Amino acid sequence: MAMNIALVGIGKIAVDQHVPSIQGSSSWRLAATVSRRGTVAGAKRYPDIETMLAARPDIPVVSLCLPPAPRFAAASAALEAGRHVMLEKPPGATLAECGSLGSLARKHELTVFATWHSREAAAVGAARDWIEGKCVRRVHVVWREDVRKWHPGQDWIFEPGGMGVLDPGINALSILTEILPQPVHLRGARLRFPENRQTPIAADLEFSGNVTAEFDWRERGREVWTINVETDAGSLLLTEGGGRMFVDGVETQLSSGPSAGSPSGEYSRLYARMAELVAVRAVEMDLRPMIHVADAFLIGRRLTVGPFDW
Amino acid sequence: MAMNIALVGIGKIAVDQHVPSIQGSSSWRLAATVSRRGTVAGAKRYPDIETMLAARPDIPVVSLCLPPAPRFAAASAALEAGRHVMLEKPPGATLAECGSLGSLARKHELTVFATWHSREAAAVGAARDWIEGKCVRRVHVVWREDVRKWHPGQDWIFEPGGMGVLDPGINALSILTEILPQPVHLRGARLRFPENRQTPIAADLEFSGNVTAEFDWRERGREVWTINVETDAGSLLLTEGGGRMFVDGVETQLSSGPSAGSPSGEYSRLYARMAELVAVRAVEMDLRPMIHVADAFLIGRRLTVGPFDW
Repeated sequence: MAMNIALVGIGKIAVDQHVPSIQGSSSWRLAATVSRRGTVAGAKRYPDIETMLAARPDIPVVSLCLPPAPRFAAASAALEAGRHVMLEKPPGATLAECGSLGSLARKHELTVFATWHSREAAAVGAARDWIEGKCVRRVHVVWREDVRKWHPGQDWIFEPGGMGVLDPGINALSILTEILPQPVHLRGARLRFPENRQTPIAADLEFSGNVTAEFDWRERGREVWTINVETDAGSLLLTEGGGRMFVDGVETQLSSGPSAGSPSGEYSRLYARMAELVAVRAVEMDLRPMIHVADAFLIGRRLTVGPFDW
Repeated sequence: MAMNIALVGIGKIAVDQHVPSIQGSSSWRLAATVSRRGTVAGAKRYPDIETMLAARPDIPVVSLCLPPAPRFAAASAALEAGRHVMLEKPPGATLAECGSLGSLARKHELTVFATWHSREAAAVGAARDWIEGKCVRRVHVVWREDVRKWHPGQDWIFEPGGMGVLDPGINALSILTEILPQPVHLRGARLRFPENRQTPIAADLEFSGNVTAEFDWRERGREVWTINVETDAGSLLLTEGGGRMFVDGVETQLSSGPSAGSPSGEYSRLYARMAELVAVRAVEMDLRPMIHVADAFLIGRRLTVGPFDW
């Protein structure tokens, strides 16, 4: 039987990914939305989460697609009202507030699920399985994309707390922490801040274990989302943000689940996982990707580059 | 019977605090030092930690007084060599490396103790006990000191990873997280970077729960280290970095332990605690103060101020 769910924050990611994933699942029924403007046909819209929580005791689960800054207030309101909570990445603006949400969920015996959608990309599980047991010698991550295409006019990503290029970069880090058998830690970073902005538009990261990453939001040509892993028994290349996988240059044919290979498959799998977690009231909150981002801001060298304007 | 201990990094803090605390304790015997230059009478000096670890299997405990950057390599070398490790604050350059040290210690069933010396200040325990059960309405922290006096010529504190004014600020945060009954998280911060430096020289922090803090390294006159806590049942003032305590304006007379009231009492208590932890091979690593610092770099607004030179 389908469970009622409310979607909070009806922006681009909600419309493109969350709504079709919910509506395409037999586990969920989109019973309400919370948004100032955005609407979804068939789901009653509420202007704020407090109103929705008070009006709809029939909705036990809330999924948040808000920017990091307002997320804590909404998530804690939902947990205090006895609802399970699913969080878009990153799970909060600060590590401390994520910790508080985890504690609050455990106190009330509710689920909180800090999702990392890139971990659900089609080839990530196969990459993790292939690497397991091998000796990793070198890893290089390249995440180059066009911020104007993915975040048109979204000034909040360049405001304090918006993370800048570490917002897409955290997707790479979520895959990295999922597929590497050993933990790594940051040794140094260079963060390039546009002179008129508060968050970096490009970043180079150097981790322990011979792991490096370059993130750049200034790509106007061919976008790249790759992770290259060299081991004692061959090399693995993940492309398209974890969507495809090559071993020693030969593409691995992935078993095609119902949505494998399609980006929205990532979100379908997240909602399937949420249903499992809610059934046992479990907390799943792996903060490692966000810890690496916070570490990059903590120890990164700040370099100033030319101004950025849309 | 006294246990052999090696002290790594013979700088100002080691000479002023660690050496007298070790030599004043019947639990410890200072058996070796690791330093390029600094020596301590009666303890053999080694030029690097690897040499000391190889030469001295009779030393089961290592205490590190190194800057954050080289700390991980030394700590992991000691743990891999089967030694218990005590860490000066902050316990590492990054949160991820602190997590790795904790995991490594647990894997080898060794103690790692991430110390926060300010928590051992004379009035901190009494303050925590007084606040417990009361409703905290407002907290304000002021930490104003002269960087030229405390870190003369130490350029590393203004280099990436040096934390800047958050290095003394983390002492205040270590007390705050110890005495407050509820967790708080950062809502915003303003970080003032000298135009020629990589870390802030002043910072204002705004936490949830009506908790604020101001840290400033530019104080040339009267230095201040205070925490003011207003509750539903009176107000508490901690002064002198937790050394003295006033309730509604009246100073609380503290029970005077062997070293209460003296700054070096902080380190004596840390070494006493280390002896307890080693006896049961426990890991004690509370990262909350450092999480707040990383959060401040993650979401803080960067403001540029005039250059800083010694």
